[in-house]
Amino acid sequence: MNYFSSDFKLGILGGGQLGKMLLTETRKFDIQTLVLEPSEEAPARYSCNGFYKGSLMDFDTVYQFGKMVDLLTIEIENVNLDALDKLEEEGLPIYPSPKTLRLIQNKGKQKDYYVSNDIPTSPHQRFVDLNDLRNALAKDELEFPFVWKCAQFGYDGNGVKICRSALDLVKLPDVECIAEEMVPFKNELAVIVARSVSGEVKTYPVVEMEFHPEANQVEYVICPARIDEKVAEKATEVALKVSEAFHHVGLLAVEMFQTADDEILVNEVAPRPHNSGHYSIEASYTSQFENHLRAILNLPLGNTDSKVAGIMVNLVGEEGFSGQVVYENIEKIMAIDGVTPHIYGKRETRPFRKMGHVTIVNEDMTEARKIAEEVKNSIRVISTTIE
Amino acid sequence: MNYFSSDFKLGILGGGQLGKMLLTETRKFDIQTLVLEPSEEAPARYSCNGFYKGSLMDFDTVYQFGKMVDLLTIEIENVNLDALDKLEEEGLPIYPSPKTLRLIQNKGKQKDYYVSNDIPTSPHQRFVDLNDLRNALAKDELEFPFVWKCAQFGYDGNGVKICRSALDLVKLPDVECIAEEMVPFKNELAVIVARSVSGEVKTYPVVEMEFHPEANQVEYVICPARIDEKVAEKATEVALKVSEAFHHVGLLAVEMFQTADDEILVNEVAPRPHNSGHYSIEASYTSQFENHLRAILNLPLGNTDSKVAGIMVNLVGEEGFSGQVVYENIEKIMAIDGVTPHIYGKRETRPFRKMGHVTIVNEDMTEARKIAEEVKNSIRVISTTIE
Repeated sequence: MNYFSSDFKLGILGGGQLGKMLLTETRKFDIQTLVLEPSEEAPARYSCNGFYKGSLMDFDTVYQFGKMVDLLTIEIENVNLDALDKLEEEGLPIYPSPKTLRLIQNKGKQKDYYVSNDIPTSPHQRFVDLNDLRNALAKDELEFPFVWKCAQFGYDGNGVKICRSALDLVKLPDVECIAEEMVPFKNELAVIVARSVSGEVKTYPVVEMEFHPEANQVEYVICPARIDEKVAEKATEVALKVSEAFHHVGLLAVEMFQTADDEILVNEVAPRPHNSGHYSIEASYTSQFENHLRAILNLPLGNTDSKVAGIMVNLVGEEGFSGQVVYENIEKIMAIDGVTPHIYGKRETRPFRKMGHVTIVNEDMTEARKIAEEVKNSIRVISTTIE
Repeated sequence: MNYFSSDFKLGILGGGQLGKMLLTETRKFDIQTLVLEPSEEAPARYSCNGFYKGSLMDFDTVYQFGKMVDLLTIEIENVNLDALDKLEEEGLPIYPSPKTLRLIQNKGKQKDYYVSNDIPTSPHQRFVDLNDLRNALAKDELEFPFVWKCAQFGYDGNGVKICRSALDLVKLPDVECIAEEMVPFKNELAVIVARSVSGEVKTYPVVEMEFHPEANQVEYVICPARIDEKVAEKATEVALKVSEAFHHVGLLAVEMFQTADDEILVNEVAPRPHNSGHYSIEASYTSQFENHLRAILNLPLGNTDSKVAGIMVNLVGEEGFSGQVVYENIEKIMAIDGVTPHIYGKRETRPFRKMGHVTIVNEDMTEARKIAEEVKNSIRVISTTIE
C-alpha cells in the first residue's frame, strides 16, 4: 500500500492534543488525514487535510465520516462503537478494533477480561449503579476503603474516587461503576506496547509516574523508571500479555502498580498514544505517535529505545484562573538546556485543564529530575484575568 | 510578548519544505502563522493558520501580506525586498532584515561583503552579464578554469557551473554573474549559527557534506563532521564572524570549504533553516527550525548539541521518472533502527527534484554512515509511470 503523498486517507476520531501530535507524524510522512471532532477550537484543527465538526457518539456522524476514509483510528476511546462495528463489517480497517474498544470503554468489562485472561489486577466488584453498590455495603459484600470508578467515560481524574466512609459516596454520580480493593503500592508504572497489523511488537521502556494529589493527574513521567531491572522486566512481560490478550493493533498504554512486595498489577489501559509516552517525542528514537502510525499502517515499527533520559511535566490550568491562557515564565524554562514546551492550542484555561506539557531530556537522569522540578516550580498556567 | 495561544501572528514568505518543517514548531508552540506562497500545492499548505497564494516577487502581494502579520520571516531568499523595506520602515519586525537579504540575494554583493569584512573566501570577479565575462576572458583578466555562478536566483545546482573551456560557456544564461577561482578542497563543511533579536548566539556542530556529482545537490550531511577539532573550531569561528558581520537574526547557514592546507573559505550563506541542518530534527536537543523560531521571537535559544550522531540523505527524484511519486522501498528503510523519512508533500516527482530526506541517527557514527549508504542504495524516488 502506498501511503506517502498518495490518495490514501486516514481518519482520526477525536481532535485533542493526542490527535494533534499524531498529525505531526502524518505531516512528516505526507499522509492525508481527516479528523472528526465535536469542538471547532480543537488542538487538531490544523495540520489535518480535512476537519469535520461532529459528535463522536452519534452513529450517523461517525458512520458517514468512516465512509470517507481508507483506515480509521482513534485518539479517544469514547466513540460510537455501533458505527465502528458496521464500518468494520463493511470492510473498513479500524485500529484499534471496535471489539477491543468495547472491552476497554467499560472498566468493569476491562477488569473482568484481565481476570479471565490471567492478567494480574487488583480485586474488583461491578455494580450497575450507585444503589447496587450501597446494597453491597449494607450486606457487607463490600467494605471501606475502596476505589470507586465509574465504568464509562471517566477521564483524567473525573470518575475516580477513594472512598473511606459513607461520606465519600454522597457526591458520586449514579452510574455503572466498579469498586476496587485498595492496594498499597510503591510505584505507578506504565509500559507502552506497539503492535502492528502483522503482529510485530515492540515495547517502550518502563516509565514511572507521579500523580498530583488533588487533581489525580500525572505530575511527572520519568523514563526510564528508577526501579529494579527485574521489576521492569516483569512489568514489560505483563504489558505484552495484555496487548496480546486484546489482539491489540496500534499503541496500548498499560498502567500498572508495583506493590509493596514487587508484584505487578494492571490498573488500566489506553488503546492509543498516551500521556505517559509524551517524553518519547524528544527522548526516543521513534516517538509513540510515529509508532502508532507505523503500527496501524502495518509499516515496520521504529526503535523504541531512548537516546537520553526523559521526564515529562504536564501543564495544567492553575486553580483560580479561567479564560485566555498565559504561560507565565515560559521564557525562563526555555532558557534551560533540554527543555521543550508543548502548547496544545487551547485558548481558554480552566483549573486542572490539560493545556500542554514540557519535556526535559538530559544524558543524566539525576540532572533531568532536578531540572524537571525547576520547570514545575517556574511555569504557571494562568489567565489574563483572575476569576 | 505572549506568543503562545495568543493573537500574535507570524508571517512566513515561502511555503516549501523549509516552511513546512518550521510549521511543525509553530504548531508545537501554538503560534499562529500565515504563509504566502505562489503554488497552491506547496508542502506548507497545511499546518499554517492561513495560506495565501501569491507571488513572493510582487511588491503589492508581499506588502499586503506583511500588513496582516506581527512579525515576518522567510523560508526562501528570493522575495520582493522593496516591499520588505517599506514594511520595516512602517515598523514591522522582519528577520532576517531586508538589508541582510539584499546582500545575500546577490552573490556578487555577498562575496564583496566578505572581502570588505575580512572574511576568508575564494577570489572572485563580478560581471554584469555573460558578455562582460567573455570580454574579461578575451583580455586575459579571467582564466579557465573557474566556477561560474549566476548572481541571483540560483537554487540547488541551477546557477552554478564549473567552466574549464569556452565550450562550457555556450549554454550559460546571459545574466549578472560571478567567476570564482577554483579552490582545491578536502571537504565541504557547514555551520548553522542561531542569533536572536537580543544578540544571543549559538552554533550547531560543524557538519560535513558530500555532493551528488551530477545534480550538484547534497547527498549526505554528516554531523558531526569527521574532521580535526582545530579545523572545526576554525570553521565555527569563521561562521560566527559571518553571522556578526551580517548582524543576522534567525538562522544563518554558512557553507565553507576546507582547503588542502586546512584553511577555511566561506562559500556562501543561507539566511534561514538549511538542508545542512535537517539532521537536527532527530539528532539535536533543539532542531534548527525550533531555534530559528526562538531566535526571531527573541526567546532563549535551545541547546544546539547533538544527542546522537546524525546523517541526512536527500531524497531527490530519479532521472527518467516524472509524475505521481512513489517512494520505492520506503518500508525497507523504515525497518532499520534510527531511520526516519521525511516526505515533503510534493505529489509530482521530476528528475533531481527535492522530494524529501531521510535522517539516520545512531550512537555510533560508523554504524550511522553504514546505514546511510544502505538507505541511499535502497530507496528510490520514482513515479507510477515511466517517462
